[in-house]
Amino acid sequence: MKFSFKNDYSEGCHPNILEALIRYNLDQQAGYGEDLYSIKAKELIKEKINNQNAGIYFVSGGTQANLIVISSVLKPYQCVISASTGHILNNETGAIEATGHKILSIEKEEGKLSPSDIIPVLENHKNVPHQVMPKLVYISNSTELGTIYSKKELEDLSVFCRENSLYLFMDGARLGHALTSESNDLSLEDLTNLTDIFYLGGTKNGALIGEAIIINNQLLQEDFAFNIKQKGALLAKGRLLGIQFLELMQNNLYFDLAKHANQQAMKIKNALLKKEIPFLSDTYTNQIFPIVNHELIELLSEKFEFYIWKNIDENSSAIRLITSWNTNEDAVNDFIQIINDHLK
Amino acid sequence: MKFSFKNDYSEGCHPNILEALIRYNLDQQAGYGEDLYSIKAKELIKEKINNQNAGIYFVSGGTQANLIVISSVLKPYQCVISASTGHILNNETGAIEATGHKILSIEKEEGKLSPSDIIPVLENHKNVPHQVMPKLVYISNSTELGTIYSKKELEDLSVFCRENSLYLFMDGARLGHALTSESNDLSLEDLTNLTDIFYLGGTKNGALIGEAIIINNQLLQEDFAFNIKQKGALLAKGRLLGIQFLELMQNNLYFDLAKHANQQAMKIKNALLKKEIPFLSDTYTNQIFPIVNHELIELLSEKFEFYIWKNIDENSSAIRLITSWNTNEDAVNDFIQIINDHLK
Amino acid sequence: MKFSFKNDYSEGCHPNILEALIRYNLDQQAGYGEDLYSIKAKELIKEKINNQNAGIYFVSGGTQANLIVISSVLKPYQCVISASTGHILNNETGAIEATGHKILSIEKEEGKLSPSDIIPVLENHKNVPHQVMPKLVYISNSTELGTIYSKKELEDLSVFCRENSLYLFMDGARLGHALTSESNDLSLEDLTNLTDIFYLGGTKNGALIGEAIIINNQLLQEDFAFNIKQKGALLAKGRLLGIQFLELMQNNLYFDLAKHANQQAMKIKNALLKKEIPFLSDTYTNQIFPIVNHELIELLSEKFEFYIWKNIDENSSAIRLITSWNTNEDAVNDFIQIINDHLK
Amino acid sequence: MKFSFKNDYSEGCHPNILEALIRYNLDQQAGYGEDLYSIKAKELIKEKINNQNAGIYFVSGGTQANLIVISSVLKPYQCVISASTGHILNNETGAIEATGHKILSIEKEEGKLSPSDIIPVLENHKNVPHQVMPKLVYISNSTELGTIYSKKELEDLSVFCRENSLYLFMDGARLGHALTSESNDLSLEDLTNLTDIFYLGGTKNGALIGEAIIINNQLLQEDFAFNIKQKGALLAKGRLLGIQFLELMQNNLYFDLAKHANQQAMKIKNALLKKEIPFLSDTYTNQIFPIVNHELIELLSEKFEFYIWKNIDENSSAIRLITSWNTNEDAVNDFIQIINDHLK
Repeated sequence: MKFSFKNDYSEGCHPNILEALIRYNLDQQAGYGEDLYSIKAKELIKEKINNQNAGIYFVSGGTQANLIVISSVLKPYQCVISASTGHILNNETGAIEATGHKILSIEKEEGKLSPSDIIPVLENHKNVPHQVMPKLVYISNSTELGTIYSKKELEDLSVFCRENSLYLFMDGARLGHALTSESNDLSLEDLTNLTDIFYLGGTKNGALIGEAIIINNQLLQEDFAFNIKQKGALLAKGRLLGIQFLELMQNNLYFDLAKHANQQAMKIKNALLKKEIPFLSDTYTNQIFPIVNHELIELLSEKFEFYIWKNIDENSSAIRLITSWNTNEDAVNDFIQIINDHLK
Repeated sequence: MKFSFKNDYSEGCHPNILEALIRYNLDQQAGYGEDLYSIKAKELIKEKINNQNAGIYFVSGGTQANLIVISSVLKPYQCVISASTGHILNNETGAIEATGHKILSIEKEEGKLSPSDIIPVLENHKNVPHQVMPKLVYISNSTELGTIYSKKELEDLSVFCRENSLYLFMDGARLGHALTSESNDLSLEDLTNLTDIFYLGGTKNGALIGEAIIINNQLLQEDFAFNIKQKGALLAKGRLLGIQFLELMQNNLYFDLAKHANQQAMKIKNALLKKEIPFLSDTYTNQIFPIVNHELIELLSEKFEFYIWKNIDENSSAIRLITSWNTNEDAVNDFIQIINDHLK
Repeated sequence: MKFSFKNDYSEGCHPNILEALIRYNLDQQAGYGEDLYSIKAKELIKEKINNQNAGIYFVSGGTQANLIVISSVLKPYQCVISASTGHILNNETGAIEATGHKILSIEKEEGKLSPSDIIPVLENHKNVPHQVMPKLVYISNSTELGTIYSKKELEDLSVFCRENSLYLFMDGARLGHALTSESNDLSLEDLTNLTDIFYLGGTKNGALIGEAIIINNQLLQEDFAFNIKQKGALLAKGRLLGIQFLELMQNNLYFDLAKHANQQAMKIKNALLKKEIPFLSDTYTNQIFPIVNHELIELLSEKFEFYIWKNIDENSSAIRLITSWNTNEDAVNDFIQIINDHLK
Repeated sequence: MKFSFKNDYSEGCHPNILEALIRYNLDQQAGYGEDLYSIKAKELIKEKINNQNAGIYFVSGGTQANLIVISSVLKPYQCVISASTGHILNNETGAIEATGHKILSIEKEEGKLSPSDIIPVLENHKNVPHQVMPKLVYISNSTELGTIYSKKELEDLSVFCRENSLYLFMDGARLGHALTSESNDLSLEDLTNLTDIFYLGGTKNGALIGEAIIINNQLLQEDFAFNIKQKGALLAKGRLLGIQFLELMQNNLYFDLAKHANQQAMKIKNALLKKEIPFLSDTYTNQIFPIVNHELIELLSEKFEFYIWKNIDENSSAIRLITSWNTNEDAVNDFIQIINDHLK
C-alpha cells in the first residue's frame, strides 16, 4: 500500500472520539440534536468563541453546511460572491444553484477576496431589477489553495461587508489548519466578531463527519433548524455529531490535530525550499503545491499517492500534498528522503 | 432516568459496528464512498437481494434518502402519491416540495396504499397541462403506523404501477422490522423485483447513521451519484457508511436486531391483549399503539417515556410505544408489570 | 358555432382597450413597466383603493401572480394554507411547489376559509422543526365555486391572521365579479385594509392579459420587482399592461363589465330557480352550478358549450355556466328558452 | 420628446397586428393556446421552417422562454454553457439559477461561441460526481452585441454538440435581425436542422409580446406544455400570441420589419465609417456600438436617447444604438446630420 498525501479525510477519526462513542453508546438520549452531548458541545464552543449569543448547529459535511447556510439567509433574487477557487463554485455539483442562487465568481488565483475585488462586482450589479442582488460574500479559511486570511485582511473585509449590507460567511472546512498556521494572527473570538456565519470543520480534522456552523448574526439564527431538517441534514442520532465535537473541543484536541497536520506539511515544504523548489502558492497550512520535475513525480509516485494539480511546462507540474491529523512522521521522512536523494 | 419507548434511535449503535470502526480506523482509504468497505458492503447487499444489476447508494438518513430519490427521478411537473400518513407529508419540513414536487395525499388511516386508492387520483389528474402528473407512488414498509405490506398487496401495487407508468418507491426506514415481522411474507428478493427503488434503513435499526438506497430500475441509476453530491449527502468519509452496512449485512445481524425489537413490542402487545386493551392499529412490528386509560398513562409515565399519540375520549388515549434493537428485556418486563398490577 | 358558457376568457378584450392600444401605439416609451401608462394606471388604482402606500405591480395572469407573490413572501420552510378548491392546488401544475413551498389543503366544498378551519391546521403543525411552518393564507374572491366573502367573514379572517402572524393573500382573478355581486358588502378600500396582498384580475374581466397585484403590507413590497423579473413575468412592453388597466380603471369600466357578467348569470339562475332546479352552491357572481337532468344537458349542448362539472346521480349532473363581460343577452335568452321549453 | 435609440421595444406593435386583434376580437375561442389563430400560426411556422415534426410553443418574452426551455430539458445536476455576454447570465435576475441550474460562463467579448471555446470547459468538468455536468449550449443570434453566426460557424457548433451529447439552444430574441442581416447566410430551415431548440422573437420585432419556441429535437417536446403552465406562462387568452404570430408570419412581415431595423442601423453605421469612427464590434444588425468623443455624445443627447455602453478613455465612450421595426427615417437622418456637422 502506498502512503497517501491526497487529502485529509483518508483515515477514520481520532481515537478519543471512538472511545467516547463506546463510553456513551447505550445511554438513551433524545433524538435530533437534543441529546446532552450536543448541548454540552455547543456550550463548549460558545465558551471558546466567547459569544454566548451565537447559534451553534451541527451538520455532516461542508457542502451540506454551505448549501444550508446560503439558501437559508438569501432571498430568491439574492446571490453569492466567491473567489473563482471557491469550493462552492467548482466542487459541489451546483449545490448552491440547486437551491436557486447564482454565485458570482471573481478570478483570484490565491483564493482570497478583498474589498477591492468586490467593489467592481457591486458596481456591475446596479441594473435593478434585471440583475441578481449580491448579498453574501463567501470566503474559505484556509482557502482551497492553502492560503489564509490575516486579521487585518479579515477586518477590512468585515467592515466593507457591513458598510455594503453584505453578509460575510466563512467556509471553515479547514479552519483548524488556518488558525494553527505559523503565520496566523486570527483567533476564534475574532471570527465571531468579524463574520456573520462561519463553521468549524470536523471532517478534515479528525472527526468521522461533522461541521459546527456558528451563526453570530442573531437575525440569521431565526428558524435556522427548519432549514437543516428540510435539506435532510438533521441526524436522528445527533449524538454522533455532539460526541465528536465534545471530544474535539476538549483539551485543545481540535487545534492540536490541525497543528500536527500543518507541521508535517511545513517539514516537507522546508525540505523542498532547501532544494530551491518553487511553489504554486506560498502556504503555511496543511496543503502545499510544489512545482517539481516529472522524473521526481514518477519516483515519488512509486511509494506515495498525491494529486498532480496543474501542468506547468514540458518538464514540470505542480503537485498537491495534503497532510492530516494522522499523517505519519515516518512517511514524511521517507518522502523527503526521496526528494533529497533525487535532487542532491 | 426513565426508560424510553419514544423511538428506535435513542441509543448509539450495535457494538459490532464500533468494533469495526476501531479495527479499520487508521487504514487510508479513498474518499466519497470509493473505500473498500463501501464497495464490499454494496456487493454483500447485491447478494442478499439477489440482483447484481441493482445500484446501491449509501446516505445518512431517511429524509435525505427520500428527497434525493424523489427529486432525482421526477421531471419538474411530475408529482408523488402518498398515503396521508406518509413521513414525507408530515415530518420532513416540506423537503420534497423544497425540491419542486407536489405530494398528493390519499387519506389512509392504516398507512397503506392499494391500486383502488390510486385510481381516483389518476382519474382526477387528467386535465393536461393544468395539473401535475402523478408519476411516483411512495409507500413505507413498515408504515408510520407499524403496519406492513403482504406479498400479495405489494404485487398488486407493483403490477398496477407498471401498467400505469408509475414508479414504485418504498421508504424502508424500518424495513428490517417489516421483513422480520411474524406476519411478513415478503423477502428482499421480492422487493428488488417489485419496486423501482427501496431502501434498507440503518439509523432505526442499530446503525449510527445510514440508509442503503437500492435502485432496481436501471434507467433510474444513471448519474444518480450527482444528485447525492448536489444535495450535500456524499460523505467525504464514506467509510463510515460502508463499515456500518458491512457489519449489519454480515451474519444476519440486520435482521436479528429488527427481530429483537419486534419481539419486545409483541411481548408488550400480548400482555395488553390479555387485558383486552384495544389498539389503534393491529401491528406486528416494533411500533404498537394501545389505547389505555389516563390513569395508567400517568402510572407508566413515572418510569417510562413514550408519546401520547391521539386522544380517544375523556378517559383514554392511544400511546405509541417503539422498541429498538437494544430494548432491554427487563424494562419490558417492568412495563408489563405496571400494566398487570393496574389492570388486575 | 355554438355559444360558449365555458369560461370568461373566450373573447378578446373590451373595445376601449383596443382603441387605447391604437391611440398610443407609436409613442416611444420606456420599457419594463416604466412607461407613462403603467405609472398612471398605478396612480389610479391607488386612488380607487384609497391607499397611497400600496405597491402596485402588473403581471400577465393568475398563475403567474400566485407563484410570484407566494415565492416572494415565504421563507423556504414556510407554507401556504388553502381551501381544497383553491386554484393553486388543482389547476396550476404544481406552480407553487415548483418554487419550493408546500400547500396545506383544508377540505371545503364551498371554497371559503374561516378561522375555525385554520385553527386545527396550526395545532397540527407545532412539531418544530420537523414540519413546515404555515405562514400564508390563500383565499379566492370570488372563489373557484363562485361564492364570495362577506365583510364580516373577511374581517374575522384578517384579525385571525394578524393575531397568528399569518399573511392573508386574496386571489382576485375574479375580484370584479365578487365586488359587483348583488350580495357583496366589501369595498376595494376594505380589501386594502384587511389583506396583505390581493390582486385585481383583468384577464377574466375584459383585458387581453393582466392582473394588478396590490401589496398593502409595506414590508412585503421590498424588492418585489426582482421576483417579477426572475420569474420571467416582467414584460419588455409593460405598456400593454399599463394601457389596459388605465382603461379598465377609468369611468368604472372594470366594475361595469363584471356587473354585466353577473347579471347574465343571475338571469339564468333565476330562470332555473323558477323551475325549482337545485344548485351545487348558492352563488351570486358569474359562475353558477345548476344540477340538471341529462336530457336537458343534451338539449342545451346542441346550441351551447359548457362544462359538466360533477356527476350527481344516474339522471342528473351539475353543470358549470360562466358568463363574461361580453356575454350576449340574446344567447342568454335562447338558453333560458330551451330550459323553459323543456321543463314546462 | 427626444427620439430614442435605446432599444427595439419602445413602441407598441405593427398596425397589422392591431387590426387583426380588432377583426377577431369578439370571436369566442378555446383558451390556453387551443384557439384557431394559435393553431394556424403554428402551422405557418412549421411551413416556414420546413419541419412538420417541430413542436411550436408561444410564450410572452425572452426571459420566460429561456427559463422554461432550460429548466425543462436539464436534469437537476446538468448545467448550461454560455458566452459571458449571454442575456441569461447578466440580465435575467438569476432566472436560470432560480430553477436550479448553474451557468458556466466563457469569456467572449463578441458574444459568440465556437467548439474550441467549449472544449476546455468540458475538460474541466470531468470530476464526477463533484461537478455539474455541462449539457446545454446557449447561444444568441443575433448576440447581445449585435454579431451573428455564419452557417459554417453554426454547423461546426452543431456537429460538436451532437458529438458531445450537448443540446444546442439558440436565443432568438433578435433572430429576425440576424436572418435579414446583409452578412447572413443562415435560413430558418438551417436553424431547424442545426439546433435542438430555438425561438423566433416577436417582442423586439414588432409584436406586443411573444416568442415562438421551436423544439426540433422530438425527445424534448414530450410534456413541454406542462412546464409552460407551471412557470405561469400559459396565457388564458393564448389568442393574443396566436394572432400576433399569424400576422407576423404572413407575407414576410416578420422579416420585412427586421430588415427595416437593420437598414436604419446600417445607414448610421456607414455615415460613421465615412468619418472613420471606430466601433466596439463589427455588426450588421440593428445594434451598433460606435466609439465617439464625449462632446459628440453630449450634442447627440440633446435630441436623442441612447445608452452609453462602455467608457473607452478620457475622451471617448462606446455608445449603443438600437433601431427598430418602426425607427423613423427622419430621425436617422437628423442623427447623421448632427454627426456630420460635428465631424466635418
